[in-house]
Parts: sequence; structure tokens; C-alpha cells
Amino acid sequence: MNETPEITIFAYSEDKFEEKRIKKLEEALDYKDYRVVWVNIDGIGYLEELKDTFKVHDVAVKAIKRTKSRARLAILKDHLFILLHQVYELKGGLKKERTAIFLKDNFVITMQERSGDVFNSIRESIRHNEGLFRGKDADYLLYALLDAIIGNYVPILENISSQMEILENKVLKDRDKETLREIHGIRRRILFVRRTIFPLLEVFRRLRLEGKEFFKEETQEYLEELYNHVMEILDIIESQRDMANGLVEIYYSTISMRTNEIIRILTVVSTIFIPLTFITGIYGMNFNTTASPYNMPELNWYYGYPVTLLAMLAIALGMLYYFKKKEWL
Amino acid sequence: MNETPEITIFAYSEDKFEEKRIKKLEEALDYKDYRVVWVNIDGIGYLEELKDTFKVHDVAVKAIKRTKSRARLAILKDHLFILLHQVYELKGGLKKERTAIFLKDNFVITMQERSGDVFNSIRESIRHNEGLFRGKDADYLLYALLDAIIGNYVPILENISSQMEILENKVLKDRDKETLREIHGIRRRILFVRRTIFPLLEVFRRLRLEGKEFFKEETQEYLEELYNHVMEILDIIESQRDMANGLVEIYYSTISMRTNEIIRILTVVSTIFIPLTFITGIYGMNFNTTASPYNMPELNWYYGYPVTLLAMLAIALGMLYYFKKKEWL
Amino acid sequence: MNETPEITIFAYSEDKFEEKRIKKLEEALDYKDYRVVWVNIDGIGYLEELKDTFKVHDVAVKAIKRTKSRARLAILKDHLFILLHQVYELKGGLKKERTAIFLKDNFVITMQERSGDVFNSIRESIRHNEGLFRGKDADYLLYALLDAIIGNYVPILENISSQMEILENKVLKDRDKETLREIHGIRRRILFVRRTIFPLLEVFRRLRLEGKEFFKEETQEYLEELYNHVMEILDIIESQRDMANGLVEIYYSTISMRTNEIIRILTVVSTIFIPLTFITGIYGMNFNTTASPYNMPELNWYYGYPVTLLAMLAIALGMLYYFKKKEWL
Amino acid sequence: MNETPEITIFAYSEDKFEEKRIKKLEEALDYKDYRVVWVNIDGIGYLEELKDTFKVHDVAVKAIKRTKSRARLAILKDHLFILLHQVYELKGGLKKERTAIFLKDNFVITMQERSGDVFNSIRESIRHNEGLFRGKDADYLLYALLDAIIGNYVPILENISSQMEILENKVLKDRDKETLREIHGIRRRILFVRRTIFPLLEVFRRLRLEGKEFFKEETQEYLEELYNHVMEILDIIESQRDMANGLVEIYYSTISMRTNEIIRILTVVSTIFIPLTFITGIYGMNFNTTASPYNMPELNWYYGYPVTLLAMLAIALGMLYYFKKKEWL
Amino acid sequence: MNETPEITIFAYSEDKFEEKRIKKLEEALDYKDYRVVWVNIDGIGYLEELKDTFKVHDVAVKAIKRTKSRARLAILKDHLFILLHQVYELKGGLKKERTAIFLKDNFVITMQERSGDVFNSIRESIRHNEGLFRGKDADYLLYALLDAIIGNYVPILENISSQMEILENKVLKDRDKETLREIHGIRRRILFVRRTIFPLLEVFRRLRLEGKEFFKEETQEYLEELYNHVMEILDIIESQRDMANGLVEIYYSTISMRTNEIIRILTVVSTIFIPLTFITGIYGMNFNTTASPYNMPELNWYYGYPVTLLAMLAIALGMLYYFKKKEWL
Repeated sequence: MNETPEITIFAYSEDKFEEKRIKKLEEALDYKDYRVVWVNIDGIGYLEELKDTFKVHDVAVKAIKRTKSRARLAILKDHLFILLHQVYELKGGLKKERTAIFLKDNFVITMQERSGDVFNSIRESIRHNEGLFRGKDADYLLYALLDAIIGNYVPILENISSQMEILENKVLKDRDKETLREIHGIRRRILFVRRTIFPLLEVFRRLRLEGKEFFKEETQEYLEELYNHVMEILDIIESQRDMANGLVEIYYSTISMRTNEIIRILTVVSTIFIPLTFITGIYGMNFNTTASPYNMPELNWYYGYPVTLLAMLAIALGMLYYFKKKEWL
Repeated sequence: MNETPEITIFAYSEDKFEEKRIKKLEEALDYKDYRVVWVNIDGIGYLEELKDTFKVHDVAVKAIKRTKSRARLAILKDHLFILLHQVYELKGGLKKERTAIFLKDNFVITMQERSGDVFNSIRESIRHNEGLFRGKDADYLLYALLDAIIGNYVPILENISSQMEILENKVLKDRDKETLREIHGIRRRILFVRRTIFPLLEVFRRLRLEGKEFFKEETQEYLEELYNHVMEILDIIESQRDMANGLVEIYYSTISMRTNEIIRILTVVSTIFIPLTFITGIYGMNFNTTASPYNMPELNWYYGYPVTLLAMLAIALGMLYYFKKKEWL
Repeated sequence: MNETPEITIFAYSEDKFEEKRIKKLEEALDYKDYRVVWVNIDGIGYLEELKDTFKVHDVAVKAIKRTKSRARLAILKDHLFILLHQVYELKGGLKKERTAIFLKDNFVITMQERSGDVFNSIRESIRHNEGLFRGKDADYLLYALLDAIIGNYVPILENISSQMEILENKVLKDRDKETLREIHGIRRRILFVRRTIFPLLEVFRRLRLEGKEFFKEETQEYLEELYNHVMEILDIIESQRDMANGLVEIYYSTISMRTNEIIRILTVVSTIFIPLTFITGIYGMNFNTTASPYNMPELNWYYGYPVTLLAMLAIALGMLYYFKKKEWL
Repeated sequence: MNETPEITIFAYSEDKFEEKRIKKLEEALDYKDYRVVWVNIDGIGYLEELKDTFKVHDVAVKAIKRTKSRARLAILKDHLFILLHQVYELKGGLKKERTAIFLKDNFVITMQERSGDVFNSIRESIRHNEGLFRGKDADYLLYALLDAIIGNYVPILENISSQMEILENKVLKDRDKETLREIHGIRRRILFVRRTIFPLLEVFRRLRLEGKEFFKEETQEYLEELYNHVMEILDIIESQRDMANGLVEIYYSTISMRTNEIIRILTVVSTIFIPLTFITGIYGMNFNTTASPYNMPELNWYYGYPVTLLAMLAIALGMLYYFKKKEWL
Repeated sequence: MNETPEITIFAYSEDKFEEKRIKKLEEALDYKDYRVVWVNIDGIGYLEELKDTFKVHDVAVKAIKRTKSRARLAILKDHLFILLHQVYELKGGLKKERTAIFLKDNFVITMQERSGDVFNSIRESIRHNEGLFRGKDADYLLYALLDAIIGNYVPILENISSQMEILENKVLKDRDKETLREIHGIRRRILFVRRTIFPLLEVFRRLRLEGKEFFKEETQEYLEELYNHVMEILDIIESQRDMANGLVEIYYSTISMRTNEIIRILTVVSTIFIPLTFITGIYGMNFNTTASPYNMPELNWYYGYPVTLLAMLAIALGMLYYFKKKEWL
């Protein structure tokens, strides 16, 4: 992935704009007279150059190197370092990849493990001088980049929501193991996103409280906006979690109600036949009717058989009536 | 929804009062000599005009634009921005809609997604000079508006409570899936209201702590009142949640006790017949009684049949007695 | 309830004491030269007079008016307002009623929705100059009143405890739905008390931290005592909650173990008879023994019948032994 | 218990030591020239004398009097008051009893409801001038006493641990109700200790933060030690709680797996016999073979009976094979 | 274990390095002119010497002595004391052992219960002057040591992860008790690691907040790194916990679905045979067909037997169709 990290410069002032791909990180310093210089690195790399050129702290570089690092904010002497994750779908599963952002003077340096298109709309806005970008400093660009990353979670969540709607219908119809596995899959994905986005709360809370000095007063209001944005995403996640848990509950209760129903009805049915079969058993006995008048005289009665059949019918109907009354059927 | 947002002005001083529908937001500034000017906008719109006329911060406009935004408070340089939700019933479900409130000098601007009647009683009070409104400043109006919105949750909750009472009776009688679905529906509605109202705690806590400068000392006491009001609503919601969970528990225990009871009784019944049927099986065997005196001599006994019947009766009664004693019946 | 609220004055100094029922609230001011004046109002009323005579804040009156209000503390400019609840039993259920307490200068005003006897022992102490009352100021009286209200929760909890002990025995014997309903009733009562007393923690915590100026230094120690007292009550409630949950658990496990036992034993019993009945079925078949020597020659054997019976006995005993060994019986 | 509280004096300086039983509390003041005076009272009593002699605050005396009081710390004007509990085993159950400790100047006063031997090792150390006692002030003695009380929880917990190990083996073998009751007993005891020791966290946290002035700088480090000691005890308790919950889980899963196994095997067995019995039923029918060649010609076949037996055997073996393949047996 | 604790000195400055095993702790002081002196003690011992030579506080020594002590940080007058645990696998289970670290001036003293190789890579770096060590002070060494200990948890967790993957496959195939026991074992190990590492959060949080004075400004950034590192480990543990809980859930649902399936199918099968057997019972009755034309004339019908067989087949097929339609099969 970090075979050939590409460096792109977006430098702009209120009336100027330059976009260029460069080969060496120190070339970025040539643009420092622009109001804002955004150095975008696609791929993890140039870490030593970062330390040399921008005097980035050793801690930040260590954090970028570690592949399992957690979203974090480091407020360093003269620069800010933010590490956060982007989530994207890959073959039905979710993957997360690191994005590192530095703010130093009028430089914003972004380093993305995965060259996605999350920042494209910002690039377009700067190119065509839309929005507030060109009239603001680097701190506003930083805000916009962070906001774009957070906003990028929304389609992921919408995707989960629509999958959940499909599952909701499935749960009431199918009851095979596949459905359960899918529900578990959804839950795992929700937990995954939640775990990825949760540390951002802390990052933005601290950015608001401790990172003030890096932001113009007019931009500070936007920091709270970031925090609120994450909270909104988390609200969606929490309600999705509730829904997924509800799905599991419905799944199990559907299964167990079905089993209960089958067993109940079948037990009732078999119970009705038990005394009937007992009666046929009685008249299937071979007591010698000639040996004694007390030995099964019914067998020789004129209406013995039809009376027995009617009696069995009466018993069956009586039991059915009783079970109905008890609401067992 | 925001086809034609309507702007209404409520301007009043201790002895004057004017109510007027205006077409352009900047006309509102003509009323600025009144003690309090309440600009009510029904529908989401005039956002750019808000920024131009009242110098409302970009952040607030962004928050209003986002349809899934969360309740929030922004304490801006010279104005307060509060975003919160109203909940109303629509076709058996609950919907929430945004209400934005600004406080700037003697102006209170409210913007409601849905032109409900939640503020009507306040309008009436101002029109007829009831209550404290005309003797107070814009901060008191703000308090009253917020209090009205919170108070509006009460009928929603009462509605849920009465639905829950109906369900409580249903649960003990019916046991079909429909009841379970209704309980789940109630739970989801309770969670929905809870999630809507929960962020208000944070909003009012911060309003009390950080928003003090926007409130006269005599009005500050009311801020705590808002917080307490939300806490009371949450108390009701929590106890409804407990009740709903209790309903689910009762539902499942009723179902499972019923199934248990059926299976238990039927198992007992069938168990009584098993040995009896076995006996009839024995005397249904065709051993040749003429081939040997040991071959089923009972069949030729004089009282063979009645003794067998009596023996079976005795066995049945004995088992019944045993099951009764064990309390299995 | 607030038909005719009664006002009683308890005014005392170290050496003087006067107790009088008055008709108008402003008469209370005549006693202001006493060290402490306790104005007790039985019933909710005289709210406007409170505002006029004692300059009580509008917020406090609003809180009293709301019937579902939550326990709260308001530290107002020159007076304290505390709202809390008393719980009492009514027809087997628990009810809560509001008690409002004001502290202003040397005045303590109490307003109780329900004229109970919770303050009687304090009245007696003042009348007969027992305890520390007459040597202390109004802040100590306030402490004593709050302590009495909290202390009044103890008999309620003791009642619940003794009901729980009765239930504990019941659970192991009876297993009908009634018992379950009673356990749920106990749980609901415990939750009710818990919800009533929980906000007091916050009230007393804030009283200790923010209300200091209303208390002499020597009385401040008592504020912590109040907090501790509530914590003790909550400790009792929590352990009762654990016990009630334990009861439910025992109830369900008793039920399910009983059902399991019945089904297990009956299944075993029926399983023993199944092969026996099968054997009787075999020898009940009508194959023509005269058509072939292979057709059920057993039927004509000399010891056919007794051997068959012995074989069946052997099978039954063998299965019993196997089930015993497997500990299924 | 507090019939005749006994007062013992332990007074020591670096080079002097005196131990004496006294009858009146004020005699303790005679020893005040020693570096440290430890007044130990076995039994609850002399409360009024405490107030008179040592000017102990009324709040502390109230807390001691209340039998259900909770562990607490009161930082009073010129003295510290700590109330905490000792737990000991009595007839298989756990009991807790109050211990009150005062620190005032060079006096440490301990009052124990139960004259146990928890302080014995401290007494021995002082008597024989072991440890640091004689070179330290009263604050160190206070630390040592508190540490001894906390340390005394360890054997109680070890006892619970060893009981739990015994139960762990029992659970896998026996499955009677007795075992379940014992597990519940263990859980209750763990909760009891937890509830007793939990408030100590708060006590020692506050002692560290707010009680600093009562401790020499060199002794202050020990306060954190107390907090850590309680945390360690709580760690043990938490892991015991996990283990106890695990026991319950194992118990229930053992029970239900056993029932499942029985029912499964027996159901399979009975299912195998059902079609066989049906076949015997068919050939037990009495259709008149002489009336028609279609009426059960099998009965007159030469190999009718053995073929039927073989067919039944084949069916039985086939079903057994099917069940084995499906892993139902 | 602490038979013969070995002391090793690692002393280095930017250009010098010395490594030596010493016999007496006070020899360590000879190296005090190096920039950093790392005294590594393998085994718990030399505690009194520590107090004498380095004036280590009594509290630290007490904490080391206690075998069940919890991870902790003590910020003492002129030195830092950190106690934490290393976890390692022993015979399939996990064990934890204490590691104590002191920082005093340019001395770092480590004392390990178990002479593992966790610090080896640091030793190598110092020996060959790799990394930043030789250019930094003792505080950086302290950071590196702590980081190494935390990093050492990763292989333990990876081991657990791979065991869990094996179990995941097992759960879907085998369903014996052994699998359940293994899952419980995994869960216990996860909880064990969690409980060991959790207190480190508090330790590093306090180190960052309160221990600042012991760290150069440039090293302080690393402290946050430690905290983040622990958070990352905890993130892994939490997701492992979720996975383990998921395994249990899958295990139980697999078991219960299997039992449900067996019982359902077998019940259906037996239910199909019940009416058939009843019919054979009817025609097995011995009513005397010669005594009356109403007595089982079917027995003498020409097609009696085949019609009966066909009727039974029809009933069986009908029921099968019904059960299929109801999706009970």
C-alpha cells in the first residue's frame, strides 16, 4: 500500500490557487507564502522526511507506524497531530484505515492509508473557489477535512440500515441459521463502526478544550460542531444497535414460539388418541367369551361395535371441546 | 415543508403590543425598539437572510440544515442558539421535528419545522397581557418557549401510559404475536422519546453554567427549572421503560407457564394410559391357551375380564393419587 | 387536599416558646423576634401569600404547583428552597407526597401535602425543651426536619423487608402465579422508593457544597450527616433489590426444575413401557400358525406365555437399572 | 454487647511505654504528655463522656449510635472521625460490626463493637518496640489501625475462595437444589463483603484529599497505600463475583444439558419403536382372510412371520443408522 | 524465586557505556556520573538496601512485598515508584508477576519477579547505540521500559485470538462439554488480562497529570503515548471479550436449535403414526362379527384390508402435506 506514496500540494490564497504533484516533501516548503498549504500524501510514508522538514514530533510518527493505533489527538509544541480512521466496505465486510492529519502554521498535512475520494468535494470547492475556504486560514481547512471524514460514516450507516430492513422481513419468514448468522454479522459491523468512532468523541472534546490556541476565535465554534457531528453519528449507531438487538430477540422468540406451538398442538393431538387407542386395546383382548358371561360380553352385543365407535367419537369431541375451552388448541 | 415559511412578529413592551405577519426578514428590525421582539418562522427557511440580518453564526445554520441534527446549544459571541426537537404522533408512530431558537439582544427568533400549536398559550398570554411576559425581557420569553416545548412531551407520555395500561390487560389474556409486537412498539416509542429528550439535559446544564451572561440574574433561577423539568420527564420515561420491560417479562412468563402447564398435564395424562394400554396388549396376545395350561390361563377364567378392568382402574387411580400427592396435577 | 390548609406557628428562643394556629400568613411575621420561627402549613396553598410575605421566588412556587415535581434544591438569593417527598402506605400500595421547605433568615416554612406525624417528635422536643433545638438557630431546625423526613423511610423499608421474608418461604412452597405477582409488586415498591429517594443524594450533595452560606459553621457538619443518612437508606434499598431479584431467580428456577423433573421421570417411565408394548404387539399379530411352522411357533410353545412375561420383566428391570446408573431417575 | 465497655490506654513515646486499663474516660487525659496515646474502648459506650472529655462532635456520636450506619469519614474542626466495619464469620454466615476511630492531637481513640484481636499485632509491636510505631506520631498509628482492619478482610475472602473451590467440584457432580442454594449463599456473602468495603474507597479517597492537614508529610504517602489496599481487596472480590456467576452458569447449563440429553435419547428410542408397533398393529387386525384373497394374505404366507420380524429389524437398524448419521444419538 | 536476586548495571552517557553485574546495591552509586544509570534487579530482594541506598519510601517497599498488590504509581518526594504486572503463559494458563520501577535523578531501578526477556531489545539498543536512548535522560528510559512492558501484552492477546479462531470452528461442529469448558477458559484468560491491564490506565493518566515534574518537556509527550498504548490494548481485549461472548451465544443457540430440531421432527413423525396405530387398533378388536351385522362388517368385506391400508396411507400423506405446508418439517 505504501509502495509509492504520492504527494500532492494544494496551495491557495484568497486570489491564488496552485495544485501540483511533487516528488520530495521539502518542495512543499516552497509554497509557504500561500495563505494555506495543504500537503496530501496518499499512502503511509515519508515519515522521516516529515520529522526533518516539518519538525513533527517523534510520538506522532510512532503512532502512525503502529497499524492498530487508536484515534488520537496530540497537541504538540507548535503543531497539532490528529489520527483517525476511515471505514469502507470491502467484500461485504468493513475495513478501517488510518488517516493522519497535521496542522502547523499555515500547513495542513494529511496522510491517508487509502487514497479514497473523501476529500474530493473539498478539493473541488477550493479549485472553484466555492464555500468559505479561500477566505479562511488553515484551521478552517482542518475543520473541513475532519468534518468530511466524519460525514463519510453516514453512507456506511445507511447501508447497514437498509440491510437491517431486509433482515427484518427475513426474520419473520425464514428461520434458518443463515438469518441468525446475518444478524450477528450486522451486529458485528455496528460494533466495529462504533468502536472506530467512539474515540473521536474524546479527540474532539479535547480539541475543543485544549487545542484552542491553534484556532482563530471565529473557527472555534466549528470545533463544537465536530463534536456534535460525532454525537449524531453515535446516536444513529446506538439506535441501530437497539434495532439489531431487537432483531435477535424477535428471531429467538419466533423460533421458540414456533417450536412451542408445534409441540403444543402435536401433544394435544396425541393426547386425544391415547384413550381411544386404549379402548381399541381393551376390545382387542382375547378373553374367552365362552368361558364366562362376564368375559367381554360387549363383543357379542348386537350394537357393540357401533356403540364403541360412537363412544370413541364422543370422547374425542369431548377432549377437543375441553382443549378448546382451555385455549390449548 | 419549507415551501413558504411564514414569518410572524410578536413585539411587545410593558404597555405596547404588536403582532404582524411580514414577508422579509429584515422588516423584523423595524420593531427593535420594543422591549422584546419574537420572530417566529414556521418552516425551515430564510437561512441566508438570518445570517445577513442577525449575523447568526454559520455553525448554527449548518446545524439547522442537517435533518438528523441532535439537540444542541451554541453559545456564540453575541447570541445564543438552541436546537431541540418536538415530538408528535403521526399515524400511530412518533415523529420528531426540529425547532431552532435564537436569542440576540431583545430578539428571540424561533424556527419550527412544523407549525404546531405548542406556543399558542404563550401567544395568548402576551396578547392579553397575562403572566409575567410583558414585564420581563427576552431572556424570560426564551425560558417560556423552552419550557413550553418540554411541557409538550407530557401528553405524549400520558398517551404512552394509557396504551400501556390497555396492553397490561391484554397481556394476561391474549398471548398472540400481535401483543408482543405491540409491546415492542411501545418500547420503541419510549426509547425514541428518551433519545430525543436526553440531549436536552446536557443543553440545559450548559445553559445554566455557561450561558449565564445572556440571562438577567432574576431569570437565571428559571434555567435550573428547565433542567429539573427535563429530569421529571426523564423520570416518567424511566418508569415507563421499567413498566414496558415488566410487560415483556410477564408476556414471556405467561407464555412459558402456559406451555409448561399444557405439556405437564398432557404428559401426566398420557403416562397414566401407558401401563393400561400395555395390559390390554398383554391380553391381546394370541398365545395358544389350548397348547399349554401356562399359556394365558387368565383368558379362560370366569372373572378374568372384570378383574382385569378393575386392576386397570386401580392402577389409574393409584397413579392419579401419586401425581396429585407430588403436585404434578 | 388543599381545601383548608392550616398554618401553625412554632416560635422559640432559648427561654421562650409559643405555638399558635394562625389564619393569615402575614401574621407569621409578628413572631420574627423569636430566635427561630417555624411556620408549618398542612396542605398545599397560600402560594401567592408566600410570594408576597416572604418574597419567595416564583420558581419555587412553580415547582410546588407541579404535582409530579422531583425532589430539588434551589439556592435563591436570600432563601433556600427544598422540595422532597414523603412516602406512605395506602391500601397496600405506596404513595408519595410533596413536602416543601423554605429557610429564610430565622424562618423555616414547611408545607406538606399530607399532614402526617413525621415532625411530631421534633415538635415535642421543642415544646419540652429537649435536644439541642432551643440552643440552635433555624439552620439546625432545617437539618432536623430533613433528617426526620429521611428517617421516616426506614419503617417503610422494614415493612418491605418483612413482606419479603414471608415471600421467601412462599416461593419455595407455592408456585402459582399469585406468588410471582407478589414478587413483582415488591420489586415495583422497591423501585418506587428508590426513585423517590435517589434525587435526594443530589439535593444534599449540593446543599453541602453550595448551600454553605445558609448554615453556621457548627451546623455544616450535619449536612454531611444528611447525605450519609440517604446513602444508608439507599444501601438498604439496594440490598433489598438484590434480594428481590434473587427471589425471582429462585421462583423461576424452582418452576423450571419442577417441570424438568416431571417431564424427565414421566419420559423415562413411558420409555420403559414402549418396548414392552411392542412385544405384546408382536404376539398379538394374527399370523396363521397352521399355515407354516415359521409363523409364530412361540404361540404354541408350552411355556410361551410365562417366558414372554419374564422376558418383558427382564427388559423392564434392565432399563430401570440403566436409567438408575445414568442417574436419570 | 455494650454492657461494660472496657477502656485500655496504650501510651508511648520513643523510650517510654505504658499500658493500663482505666475506669473513667477522663483519666486518659493524664497520659497526654506521651508522644501517642491510644485509647481503646471495647464495646459501644462512654459516648457522652467522649463529647465532654475530647470535645468530639455531636455528628460523630450520632453516627456511632445508629446501628446501620455506613462507613464514613468526618473531617471535623480539630479532629478526624472514621467509622468503618469489621466482618467476621458467625455460624456459617457473615456479620459486620462497627469500629469508630478518632484522631485528635496525639490521641487516637478506637471504639469497637466487638472486642476482636484485629489490633493485637499492633499492640505487640508497640509493646516490644517493633516496627516504626514508637518513632512516629499518632497519625501513623491511625494508618496502622486502618490498615489492620482492611487486612483483616483477607482471611474472610480466602475462606470464601476455598468454599468456592469445593463447590466447583460439587457442581459438576451433584445437581440437587442444595448445591444451588450453596452457590446463592456464597454469592450473598460476596455481595455482603463488597457492600461493606465499597464505601471505604470513598472514605480513603477523601482522607487523602481533604484530610491532609491531620497527617505529617511523611505519613501522607501511607494514605494512598490504604486506598490501594482497599482496591486490591475489591479486585479479589470482583474476581470472586465473576467466579460465582460462572458457577451459576455452569450449574444451569449442566442441568439443562442433562435434561436435553435424556429427552433427546428417550425421544429417539421411542421414535424407533413407533413404526414397529404400527406394523404389529397391522398384523393384529382381524380382517377375515377367508372372506377374500385380498384380506391380509400375508398371515397365511409360509414365511410371513419371519419376514415381518426381519422387516421390523431392518426398519429399526435403518432408523438407528439415520439417527447416528444425524448425530442425534 | 528471590533466592539470589541478580543486580545488573547499565550505565551510559552519549559516548560511554558500561554494563556490569554487581553484588551489592551500593556499588550502583559509583556509576552516578553517567547520564543514565539503569539498575536492573532480577528477583524480588534487596528491599532494605533500596531504602538505605536510594532513600526509597517505606510505602513502595511495602507494596512490593505484598504479593497480590495492584498496579500503582506513587509520586514520592524525590522519586517515582511504579508497580505493574507482566503476564506470561505457563502450562496453558496465564500467570502475572510484579515489576517495580523507580525513577530517581538519573537512576532507573527495575525489579522483576521473573527475569524475562521483555527488556532485551532495549538493552540491545543501548549497547549498540541504536534509537534515541543515549541522547536522552533517565525519563526517556523509564518511558521505554514501560512501553516495552505494555507492548509485551500484544503476543499474549494474539495467542488468545488464534485460540479463539480455532474454537470458532469447533463450536459449529462439536457440541460437547469440552468445547464449552474451553470457551469459559478463554473468557477467564481475557478477563485476567483485562484486570491486570486496567489499573494501568489510571497509573498512566496520573503519571501524565501529576508526574510531570519528573519528565523533561520533550519527554512529556511520550506519557500520553503510554496511555494511548494501554487504550489500544484494552480495545483489543474488549473486542475479544465481545467475540468470546458471541462464541458462548452461538454455542448455546447451536445446542438448543439442534435439540429443538430433533424434538420437532421426532414429534411430527410420532404424530403421524398415532392415528394409523389407532386404526389398526380398531380392526384388532374382537367384536363378534357373527353376532350382529353391525359388528365390524369391514372385516368380512372383499377389499377391507387393502382399503384400510390405502386409507392409512392417505392419512399419512395428508398429515405430511399439512406439516410441510405449516413448515413443521
